[in-house]
Amino acid sequence: MTFTTIKWLGNFISVLDQRALPADEKYLTLTTVNEVVEAIKNLTVRGAPLIGVTGAMGIALAAVASKATTIEELKNDIEHAAQKLKATRPTAVNLAWGIERMMCVVNPPPPTGGRADSASRSGERGSSLNKLQRSLVDLALHIYEEDITTNQQIGQNGQTLLRNGDAVLTHCNAGALATAGYGTALGVIYAAIENGKKISVYADETRPVLQGARLTAWELQKNNVPVTVITDNMAAWMMANKKINAVIVGADRIAANGDTANKIGTLNVAIAAKHFGIPFYVAAPFSTIDPSTKTGQDIPIEERDFYEVTHIRDQQITPDNVTIRNPAFDVTPINLISGFITEKGVLKPPFLS
Amino acid sequence: MTFTTIKWLGNFISVLDQRALPADEKYLTLTTVNEVVEAIKNLTVRGAPLIGVTGAMGIALAAVASKATTIEELKNDIEHAAQKLKATRPTAVNLAWGIERMMCVVNPPPPTGGRADSASRSGERGSSLNKLQRSLVDLALHIYEEDITTNQQIGQNGQTLLRNGDAVLTHCNAGALATAGYGTALGVIYAAIENGKKISVYADETRPVLQGARLTAWELQKNNVPVTVITDNMAAWMMANKKINAVIVGADRIAANGDTANKIGTLNVAIAAKHFGIPFYVAAPFSTIDPSTKTGQDIPIEERDFYEVTHIRDQQITPDNVTIRNPAFDVTPINLISGFITEKGVLKPPFLS
Repeated sequence: MTFTTIKWLGNFISVLDQRALPADEKYLTLTTVNEVVEAIKNLTVRGAPLIGVTGAMGIALAAVASKATTIEELKNDIEHAAQKLKATRPTAVNLAWGIERMMCVVNPPPPTGGRADSASRSGERGSSLNKLQRSLVDLALHIYEEDITTNQQIGQNGQTLLRNGDAVLTHCNAGALATAGYGTALGVIYAAIENGKKISVYADETRPVLQGARLTAWELQKNNVPVTVITDNMAAWMMANKKINAVIVGADRIAANGDTANKIGTLNVAIAAKHFGIPFYVAAPFSTIDPSTKTGQDIPIEERDFYEVTHIRDQQITPDNVTIRNPAFDVTPINLISGFITEKGVLKPPFLS
Repeated sequence: MTFTTIKWLGNFISVLDQRALPADEKYLTLTTVNEVVEAIKNLTVRGAPLIGVTGAMGIALAAVASKATTIEELKNDIEHAAQKLKATRPTAVNLAWGIERMMCVVNPPPPTGGRADSASRSGERGSSLNKLQRSLVDLALHIYEEDITTNQQIGQNGQTLLRNGDAVLTHCNAGALATAGYGTALGVIYAAIENGKKISVYADETRPVLQGARLTAWELQKNNVPVTVITDNMAAWMMANKKINAVIVGADRIAANGDTANKIGTLNVAIAAKHFGIPFYVAAPFSTIDPSTKTGQDIPIEERDFYEVTHIRDQQITPDNVTIRNPAFDVTPINLISGFITEKGVLKPPFLS
């Protein structure tokens, strides 16, 4: 990859501003937790795995930027940051998961049969502060690197499903741009190509935020993967004309029964794929499966600002004051999904035995 | 209706510039056949029934604007205009049908068992020129008025399918704006409301040209019909959430077997409606059924300029030089269609007994 979605730089975070793509490849520096919160909310960074990594780095930033002098104050600052970061976007489980992993370092669960190990009870105040900060930075960097390795493994597992010459339809962007690197759905494409297969991609433009037209097209072009952009409503017609051999999308949350929340429009594509007998795969880290979410009905669906629908690049397209709906995600039921491509293999529910 | 899509003004045609909606309601004057050709091509006027009427008025304009001094020259000029007008857009059958009806006046078919009646053989040269011109203007005005009456009858026939409180999903614009007046799919909505039913509408925005977001929303707002705009890819999710009771769309061409060409994305909606058990109706004048087109496979599908996909309101959304597809229509097979709402009733194929 010739770009980096996110980078930890000691006292701040550098992120690729995905709102400016494809016109500009520019990087922003986030120096406070509030700036991280804003960057997640306004889609400077987006993509379930990437916002998981961003949330983890946000906790690390809260720790190193804290002016706390006691471990209690530091933990307080971090707790406060965790709450704000978690509240940014409700649907992707990766965000909560990344933050909770970090918080296990702050408030470790009691060891089985033992007492909670509390750094706050240490007498060496300064060194325990530093130790906690270092531990959090280390874990954030580990989560970052782990995401890339996970994606590469997803790619390897998924590429076995593709044949030489296949054209794959994808929706939204589940590429390197949606992750710390390599990508989930697009990771499968990259791995297939690395394995010598000729693969081309149809990218749904993905209204309202146009992640397909802007991000997937940009990323695939950069990586010399043949890509054709279509409007979302052309997908079924491409399938009817036998242009599509498989569909691969990412996921924001997979319920225990396999129902999957992903970018709005995924359900349309899944229904069309079923209609035409085209396999429909979800590619995601195993951590996207949320055992505490029983079915799709339990997944909270974020409704975003109407402005995303009424305006495109600040040009108003609708009449004034028209009613709008803008759910950012939909839920594809398990009966429309051919398999889940994870780092642990291509799975079907029940995921946990 | 508080607007007029097209008006014959003696020596020229006035049309509502639909490209400028919803921001501006402005009218353009077309004084030459070339201007009419351009207005159809660039979507100043659009909608299958409306381009049929525009084609007919274009022939009338060719006749009155002609500088011919002999009937042969006049017929030549009209023939030339007919060819240019017919070539503007290939999919909607209404355009060819409107023009061919006009050409029957220019070159009447021989009466059964008799000889062709040829005005050109009349000795009264000047008066036969005037007579042909008058006949063509009269027929164009008749086609215009007939379209409105037809739509009102479609509305009456269709409204019986809707219940009080229904929410109807529509795609593109098959409203008053797509016709000489009243509308086909939206005519059904208007008629249901005139019959005292409370009806609300979900309008797919309809990329790439946004006829739903721009035109359907504008027209329904003007007529005080509750309308919610969604992006095309939200349709299935609205259905999954039981927000939609019926789908009604227009048609550009209906094959003899019932396969229906309509705005790109109609197929996605039809497949989703079938999946969720929601009735999917096509509302169109009976003349949209083309007996010479056997099945959907025989319908030519217009592929339009890539710029419509790569740019929205002149803002570029895709990377430079990316491959694009832009079919303007798709074909929904008959097995996904619950019925055809025409002025002759709600029909199913075979249409001709």
